[in-house]
Amino acid sequence: MAEAGFGDRLTAVFDDLGQLCVGIDPHPYLLEQWGLADSPAGLVEFGLRVVEATAGLAGIVKPQVAFFERHGSAGYAALETVLASARAAGILIIADVKRGDLGTSVEAYGQAWLTPGSTLEADAMTISAYQGVGSLAAPIGLALAGGKGLFVLAATSNPEARDVQTAITASGKSVASSIVGNVVQINQRQTEKTHGSIGLVLGATVDFADYGIDLETLAAQPSTPVLAPGFGHQGARYTDLEKLYASAAPFAVVAASRSILEAGPDGIAEALTRQAAEVRACRG
Amino acid sequence: MAEAGFGDRLTAVFDDLGQLCVGIDPHPYLLEQWGLADSPAGLVEFGLRVVEATAGLAGIVKPQVAFFERHGSAGYAALETVLASARAAGILIIADVKRGDLGTSVEAYGQAWLTPGSTLEADAMTISAYQGVGSLAAPIGLALAGGKGLFVLAATSNPEARDVQTAITASGKSVASSIVGNVVQINQRQTEKTHGSIGLVLGATVDFADYGIDLETLAAQPSTPVLAPGFGHQGARYTDLEKLYASAAPFAVVAASRSILEAGPDGIAEALTRQAAEVRACRG
Repeated sequence: MAEAGFGDRLTAVFDDLGQLCVGIDPHPYLLEQWGLADSPAGLVEFGLRVVEATAGLAGIVKPQVAFFERHGSAGYAALETVLASARAAGILIIADVKRGDLGTSVEAYGQAWLTPGSTLEADAMTISAYQGVGSLAAPIGLALAGGKGLFVLAATSNPEARDVQTAITASGKSVASSIVGNVVQINQRQTEKTHGSIGLVLGATVDFADYGIDLETLAAQPSTPVLAPGFGHQGARYTDLEKLYASAAPFAVVAASRSILEAGPDGIAEALTRQAAEVRACRG
Repeated sequence: MAEAGFGDRLTAVFDDLGQLCVGIDPHPYLLEQWGLADSPAGLVEFGLRVVEATAGLAGIVKPQVAFFERHGSAGYAALETVLASARAAGILIIADVKRGDLGTSVEAYGQAWLTPGSTLEADAMTISAYQGVGSLAAPIGLALAGGKGLFVLAATSNPEARDVQTAITASGKSVASSIVGNVVQINQRQTEKTHGSIGLVLGATVDFADYGIDLETLAAQPSTPVLAPGFGHQGARYTDLEKLYASAAPFAVVAASRSILEAGPDGIAEALTRQAAEVRACRG
């Protein structure tokens, strides 16, 4: 128990640099805008510049792994270089991979992203519970034992998700609310902690009451962290952070990608400084 | 429209070599049993031997990508070698990746696995609709345009999945049944085809009636292919194939992994010959 849990480390970052999390999303259109090739070398350059700009201004990055996987093993090698650079800069990494499977397969995904010393080592990863929160037992165990975190998809920011995520389970709760309940329970069992390490993806564009999600349960100690996409291009505004997340707002990782990255290599530091300050201002 | 769709190619393989699909699952315990290192070199050797044993005896392989990802970019390079070998042998590849995301991110995953000439090129990939079948529009489009396939997770073989997959959507159908309906509709729209290219993952251990899934809808032309895990170690028997999948049985990819791989490098060809014959015998 010498090591701090992911929840504690996340809270320390919030206290130090605030809640903004910078996406590392090398979309082809952004690479072009940055004057970089849509190639593994372009991905490395893009990722390193984002990490460099982030250092000291924000404390968390979130690489969208799909854009690296698109380039196969060479794309993964590029990602490894970017991750090493973020680790060296002391920036918390949330690998946006949305993996999901069962048994030894999902355990292997957990090992890839959450094992100290792995070339793909991150501080936390996003994960899907379509096969049930119970199917995620192995990565949850790995995270809790190794000071790492998970963010389980619950209510995502895209409208097409509504049909699945608002469906009503046998317990009478929505799918999203049932996942929230299961994850909150896992954190509550870590009674020696103040902050839990198993988080939830709750999009900023979602009407949580409509999904049957009670945000207050996330604030009870040990608290449940939230990964909050949906700001900027997807429509939510930082000034609505407290209104949207209510008692869960202090635990929300505020994710922004294109609204920062579109500032280009020359403008990213300024965009990041401004947006980090905006997010801090919204949380007295 | 010169190129055959994935559904047509899959049917041709069924006619030629039957419905058995061999998992390429380099679990650490299997690598040890095979006398191989749990390393990228061990993965290459394991994968190449499975492909070599499969050639001529079965027509489909399904690499479990988690076990490659566990070794980072070097694991992906190992997978690329194995995929190239399977392609060269004319074996159909279903990449078991269970990816899922939205917009340009899930499109990037589709590009990684379904683009002709990509180092990770497969014939089909597994995919998750936790964010809604609508979120998968980009990879569905890529698959249909490029002669490739998808298998969308619907009713999986693990018991912890029940809560999410049997939840009732606004339309009154279960989540699994709603996904089945959406996928069948996508295939039905390809009116010039006999066999659809967008498939479903329907585990052999699932009570489909209990999940509200009507298997007959899968048989209507253009038919909907099924990826059927759950045989062997997970409990289902090949002799129950017709009983379990009923009118969808002719379209089922019968996946087996450990029950074949545990035969070891010296026994795999014999195990594969026997099991391929068993599967053929169950389909008059």
